[in-house]
Amino acid sequence: MQVDRLWTNGRLMTMVPGAPGAPGLGVVEGGAVAEEAGRIVFAGPMADLPGDLDARDRTDLEGRWVSPGLIDCHTHLVHGGDRAREFELRLAGASYEEIARAGGGIRSTVAATRAASEDELVASALPRLDALLAEGVTTVEIKSGYGLETEAETRMLFAARRLADERAVTVTTTFLGAHAVPPEFEGDADGYIHAVCREQLASIAADNLADAVDGFCETIAFSPDQMALVFDAAQALGLPVKLHAEQLSNLGGARLAARYGALSADHLEYLDEDGVAAMAHAGLTAVLLPGAFYFLRETQVPPVDALRLAGVPIAVATDCNPGSSPLTSPLVALNMAATLFRLTVEECLLGITRNAARALGRLGDIGTLEPGKACDLAIWNIETPAELVYRIGFNPLHARVWRGK
Amino acid sequence: MQVDRLWTNGRLMTMVPGAPGAPGLGVVEGGAVAEEAGRIVFAGPMADLPGDLDARDRTDLEGRWVSPGLIDCHTHLVHGGDRAREFELRLAGASYEEIARAGGGIRSTVAATRAASEDELVASALPRLDALLAEGVTTVEIKSGYGLETEAETRMLFAARRLADERAVTVTTTFLGAHAVPPEFEGDADGYIHAVCREQLASIAADNLADAVDGFCETIAFSPDQMALVFDAAQALGLPVKLHAEQLSNLGGARLAARYGALSADHLEYLDEDGVAAMAHAGLTAVLLPGAFYFLRETQVPPVDALRLAGVPIAVATDCNPGSSPLTSPLVALNMAATLFRLTVEECLLGITRNAARALGRLGDIGTLEPGKACDLAIWNIETPAELVYRIGFNPLHARVWRGK
Ligand SMILES: [Zn+2]
Ligand SMILES: [Zn+2]
Repeated sequence: MQVDRLWTNGRLMTMVPGAPGAPGLGVVEGGAVAEEAGRIVFAGPMADLPGDLDARDRTDLEGRWVSPGLIDCHTHLVHGGDRAREFELRLAGASYEEIARAGGGIRSTVAATRAASEDELVASALPRLDALLAEGVTTVEIKSGYGLETEAETRMLFAARRLADERAVTVTTTFLGAHAVPPEFEGDADGYIHAVCREQLASIAADNLADAVDGFCETIAFSPDQMALVFDAAQALGLPVKLHAEQLSNLGGARLAARYGALSADHLEYLDEDGVAAMAHAGLTAVLLPGAFYFLRETQVPPVDALRLAGVPIAVATDCNPGSSPLTSPLVALNMAATLFRLTVEECLLGITRNAARALGRLGDIGTLEPGKACDLAIWNIETPAELVYRIGFNPLHARVWRGK
Repeated sequence: MQVDRLWTNGRLMTMVPGAPGAPGLGVVEGGAVAEEAGRIVFAGPMADLPGDLDARDRTDLEGRWVSPGLIDCHTHLVHGGDRAREFELRLAGASYEEIARAGGGIRSTVAATRAASEDELVASALPRLDALLAEGVTTVEIKSGYGLETEAETRMLFAARRLADERAVTVTTTFLGAHAVPPEFEGDADGYIHAVCREQLASIAADNLADAVDGFCETIAFSPDQMALVFDAAQALGLPVKLHAEQLSNLGGARLAARYGALSADHLEYLDEDGVAAMAHAGLTAVLLPGAFYFLRETQVPPVDALRLAGVPIAVATDCNPGSSPLTSPLVALNMAATLFRLTVEECLLGITRNAARALGRLGDIGTLEPGKACDLAIWNIETPAELVYRIGFNPLHARVWRGK
């Protein structure tokens, strides 16, 4: 058996439940991974390596831990400008009104994004992407949602796709036209939703620019009825859906998402028992975003126990965005998920690998160390997996492998 | 005028109050810094550079921001082991009793530290130190306090001093024998304090290993009366004092520290008006440690408004330690100080430069960009100083300069 690369003498977190060793993370001590043409062809105990295996390139991991490459399954990485000045003003005591008058809030990001060229969007996103990659990310989801009209939404998604040419990373794109009502539709959310469905979504689907369709279901954004129109339009185009739901109040967004067989419902601080049951029944993944909870100083935590009991898979992501989570560290996101939401170490690590892949509908391709999957690896200088969650602002990544390279 | 190095075309945060530009950070646009023999000989507008200035080495900063090198004025960077396993057990629902039975808590760190050689303590601290340096730290305070007997406390302080040989950084050391009652003195805190004063402190002062003396004044540690004995002994040896005070309850530790003219009182969540007044009167610096507040999920925040009103200088540090703040990012500490304690951007940035120098009694030597001070610089790829506080898990350091190199 001829392979491109072989890593030996590693401690694998395969993320395959029921594997030998610690059940949750599917730990394999004394493990090896073999790769051919960018795919994993073997992941398991060295003792089980095929006897005739011949590798063009061999790496001795010297006992290091290996996990699947991390998957950041919810980000707004592409956007114009930042909100550092607004952050500064708020801390100095400025009121929301004063900040709005100074051009703050999501509208400032919309204005900056509309004013930015595709090149500028790519250039400003690259340092943020590089921060993710430096901590072992190999797949990142990126949403539109600061253009809020066809041309600017299209430009954002083109920029997101281009990031995958600039760096060794898989980018999945999500159309988020239903993020906020733009200034030109002020007071006419229904009219804007009509434009999202008939103009933006149709054009973006025609250009094949989005892997999924998302929305912000909240009193300050769109109602479940309005989101249902967007989901109808998405499904007519064959696009999977997902939803920002129950972040600041309970509008029944998760139930709506479940009714449409969504990939995930995200945030979920105000999710109730009905919503949990609906998500479990429809097989949705719960994507928890502790960075926004922390940055907004929220106090209502998501119903983690109920999600566990119902068997809803839990993912964790950075939610990297300029307004409510200027966070570019997946490892800090894990620490926050543990510290603030009381996820266990296993839940955190599964949440940024296996279950994040599930949230993207790509568990068949990424998220675990199994033959047939993409050879995306993160190799760590740690003694125990718990260190990845326990430390804050510490990066023990030894090496990152994307598609075998 | 002949100098070693000259940096031009920078935007300086001199941290000198009343300097031209934004008053708080002492901003100088179009600024230059000149260095000779490791000291700053000029810091100000390029227009004011001496006409006859001749530099052996010139760097065009291309408009980048320059601050004094960051000063982490409260850390427990040197210690054996970690507490990742304990963190994992707690999240999985283990009780404090179960964790104690599994060898957890501060005693596990004491056991690991006592068992570690000086070389091992240096080797395990280096990755943590490197994480601080990567974000622009040029001075770090390191405490003992996990040895709790003369030989191991001495070894910790030797290891701390050796870190300054291994890396281009200034290390200041603090003797923290009064950190916890060790197992061999269980139930006899008075007896242990006697040993701290008569044996440990005397020996460490004779070896000139500590720049200051600290203690943990708390119901679970030592009373103000016990700390007064330690402070008496320190002052008899000519060593400045500081105190972990009012973190979990109000014992009047800050008042005690003020009575001894301490450099700082640290933590201060439960500080009352009397304590604020005493600190202001005696000129103490308040060192806030939001990492521990976050990690322990405390809810009582320090009285920031009262400290401001009283004119108490505020510093911010990582408190890097294995039990309550496994944090190695000074920039994350700043974000937490802003997000959780509502410090302004200016207060955060002064808190990790000028006021951190003050907390170490070294404002004459470091902490601002002024002629005569050490040429310790952090050069940043940012548009505005606020970005250093606003972003989470993002490192925009362009270059770090320690003593002109
Ligand atoms: Zn989002
Ligand atoms: Zn401390």
